[in-house]
Amino acid sequence: MYRASFRCIAGCHGTHPLFTPLYRCPTCGDLLEVAHDVEALKDRSAGAWMRLFDERYKRTLWPYGSAVWGKKEWVCPDIRDDQIVSMDEGGTNLLWAERYGASLGVPDLWIKQCGNSHTGSFKDLGMTVLVSAVRQMISDGQQVRAIACASTGDTSAALAAYAAAAGIPSIVLLPRGKVSVAQLLQPIANGALVLSLDTDFDGCMAIVQRLAAEEGVYLANSMNSLRLEGQKTVSVEIVQQWDWQVPDVIIIPGGNLGNVSALGAGFDMMRALGVVSKRPRIVVAQAARANPLYLAYANNWDFTPVQAQSTLASAIQIGNPVSIRKAIRTLQAYDGIVEQASESELADASARADRTGMFNCPHTGVALAVLEKLAARGEITKDQRVVVVSTANGLKFSDFKLQYHTRQLEGIDARLSNTPIELPNDYDAVRRAIDTHT
Amino acid sequence: MYRASFRCIAGCHGTHPLFTPLYRCPTCGDLLEVAHDVEALKDRSAGAWMRLFDERYKRTLWPYGSAVWGKKEWVCPDIRDDQIVSMDEGGTNLLWAERYGASLGVPDLWIKQCGNSHTGSFKDLGMTVLVSAVRQMISDGQQVRAIACASTGDTSAALAAYAAAAGIPSIVLLPRGKVSVAQLLQPIANGALVLSLDTDFDGCMAIVQRLAAEEGVYLANSMNSLRLEGQKTVSVEIVQQWDWQVPDVIIIPGGNLGNVSALGAGFDMMRALGVVSKRPRIVVAQAARANPLYLAYANNWDFTPVQAQSTLASAIQIGNPVSIRKAIRTLQAYDGIVEQASESELADASARADRTGMFNCPHTGVALAVLEKLAARGEITKDQRVVVVSTANGLKFSDFKLQYHTRQLEGIDARLSNTPIELPNDYDAVRRAIDTHT
Repeated sequence: MYRASFRCIAGCHGTHPLFTPLYRCPTCGDLLEVAHDVEALKDRSAGAWMRLFDERYKRTLWPYGSAVWGKKEWVCPDIRDDQIVSMDEGGTNLLWAERYGASLGVPDLWIKQCGNSHTGSFKDLGMTVLVSAVRQMISDGQQVRAIACASTGDTSAALAAYAAAAGIPSIVLLPRGKVSVAQLLQPIANGALVLSLDTDFDGCMAIVQRLAAEEGVYLANSMNSLRLEGQKTVSVEIVQQWDWQVPDVIIIPGGNLGNVSALGAGFDMMRALGVVSKRPRIVVAQAARANPLYLAYANNWDFTPVQAQSTLASAIQIGNPVSIRKAIRTLQAYDGIVEQASESELADASARADRTGMFNCPHTGVALAVLEKLAARGEITKDQRVVVVSTANGLKFSDFKLQYHTRQLEGIDARLSNTPIELPNDYDAVRRAIDTHT
Repeated sequence: MYRASFRCIAGCHGTHPLFTPLYRCPTCGDLLEVAHDVEALKDRSAGAWMRLFDERYKRTLWPYGSAVWGKKEWVCPDIRDDQIVSMDEGGTNLLWAERYGASLGVPDLWIKQCGNSHTGSFKDLGMTVLVSAVRQMISDGQQVRAIACASTGDTSAALAAYAAAAGIPSIVLLPRGKVSVAQLLQPIANGALVLSLDTDFDGCMAIVQRLAAEEGVYLANSMNSLRLEGQKTVSVEIVQQWDWQVPDVIIIPGGNLGNVSALGAGFDMMRALGVVSKRPRIVVAQAARANPLYLAYANNWDFTPVQAQSTLASAIQIGNPVSIRKAIRTLQAYDGIVEQASESELADASARADRTGMFNCPHTGVALAVLEKLAARGEITKDQRVVVVSTANGLKFSDFKLQYHTRQLEGIDARLSNTPIELPNDYDAVRRAIDTHT
């Protein structure tokens, strides 16, 4: 009854079926996006959609307890339930940052803890869709030998876990010598074929794209717009977690920028179907050392790629974002702001929030630093409800935490560092330390 | 209307209020447990309790969306909602281990992913109760300067995060030189006062107990039975996630053994109130190098402490468990089995499950190794529904994973290790590697 298909984001004529290995427009080579038959979806009223999604939310009927698949009709309606590879995506805590927010004069501050998921990042939201689609393609007789990506971070972790759960081989390509085994532990443990090539990241991308063209390997990199359909559910879920009220501001860290357009797509869908009418303001937070979107924003949306410099926010260290055009379109529609954070700012903001009970990844630190700036400037005010999207689990970034608290981050003052105090085995010494420090 | 209080597990006369700093029976010094007024709780029918818990489960009404506080009347009825310190406990995925289970001949196998929580372990379930109780004590005028524990693992992480969220100082005591800063990153980031003492773990325990007695410091170690009230909700949640059906077997790793008695207490409560009638069989999995409960089981429940040896399952490296008597009582009531796993067995079982999309901590590895043994011996059969309680997030144990997959674990063959393959920047070399390995 409901239908979705690929179409070109540049407006080329025609649509293409989702269950084919297609990653770019065959006419112009631009990105694809998933287009839903919104008229068909209007057969349910806004209230009926909300009721349906609430009834399914975190319940036991497979696969609808997953907060992605609970919104299946809006995500990928043509997939059969028995092909879905799900490990309980979404439904993550929308944490009221009571103490941290109060310290900034933003009392209505909420952190969407997307990293509290099966593989520890928001990538699970999209990967469940991609791997389920591939499983259905295989089940329907298509030849797919493996799913592959060129990635060193959360994407490869999510791919390897979902592929392993489905019994589909996964392949991860990465530049030799640039990445340690420790950074790859998730895909390694999940049995991915990890190929370390004597080239750079672009060289890996070239090879993985040729594998997709010639070897029956399905491509999982972020140009694949199936993943964005899962990621857009985070917008619906944030609103759903407030009984269908829209926040005033949403702040999200941006690198390749697929998550920005996904956020917008979720609100577009809710607005098209009458579930919400208000638009939140979308703020993209970039590391100052990898800030092409910030520069475009400051330059009337005139985009030029940059050479990204090394940043603690390694997952968003991207100078030429794949989804730049989609992201600019989203920001133009959602009264967007782009702001940047220095290495010191992101590290301190992360540490400051941790002191109130969180454990944030450095990318969330970028978003928090931007929040702090906007609050200090009065661009975010105390009456506004603000959501920060935390994209990954801090447990994936123990090196960052360790170096901060042991003051080993070059050029960073780490003024919120905390270190153990060494004492003799003496009760009075302990008592005095407690008197001094609490 | 509902009431709970402390009572002595050895049966000493009298009860004691929950909101006092009391950790052991004032008469005999034995452990305390929380006793609920079960007759009062019978004012609701079993069906009414199930309906109430289902209505609250993961919903938006504070604090009942937490799967611990959604069962508040069974956990800690006297706490006021505005004193509760919650970061969305419980509601973790009950993962169908389809491929792993099939490989063992246990097709109805489910992994309760307790590590997928705010601080990455099942300790959150109990710590939210303890810290909320302390917050209420402070609000009611009691002098509590800080909450303290002697711990190097998940307990200190949970304590520090919940205390930080509440704005209550936390103190972690640990033996100097035995624990690296990396192992303490969570309490350090969350701003705990970390004191590294020139003594062993018992020396730290002695000092923290004196601090509790003399300095107005509240004790958070596992003898504190408030925490078990939160932990027991895992039993209710497992049953709830199957629409109130009881599994046949539950396997849980055991060290200090508080979680074993908590598991039993959850089922006791459900049985007393008519929510379930069937008892699951409870299996405790111990590391062979720290196996006092296993030895007691093999010796007709005659317990003798042992000197625990170093094990990869570091959180259960305990030779003289605090909750031994409660645990034996639980196992006697729930047709208990205790089995042990060697270092090789736990590492390989962990890796085997990871190959199917999980990312398990070594303690879960112990439980999976025991599952594999019981399945091989026919003590678990293919028609049984089996739950393994995964107690912590594998992301906390990256050293364990790294050493396994780089074959650096002494005496362990690591036959399921996976390592990157290094290749030149050559398409044909990549193609051949894929032909060979997929």
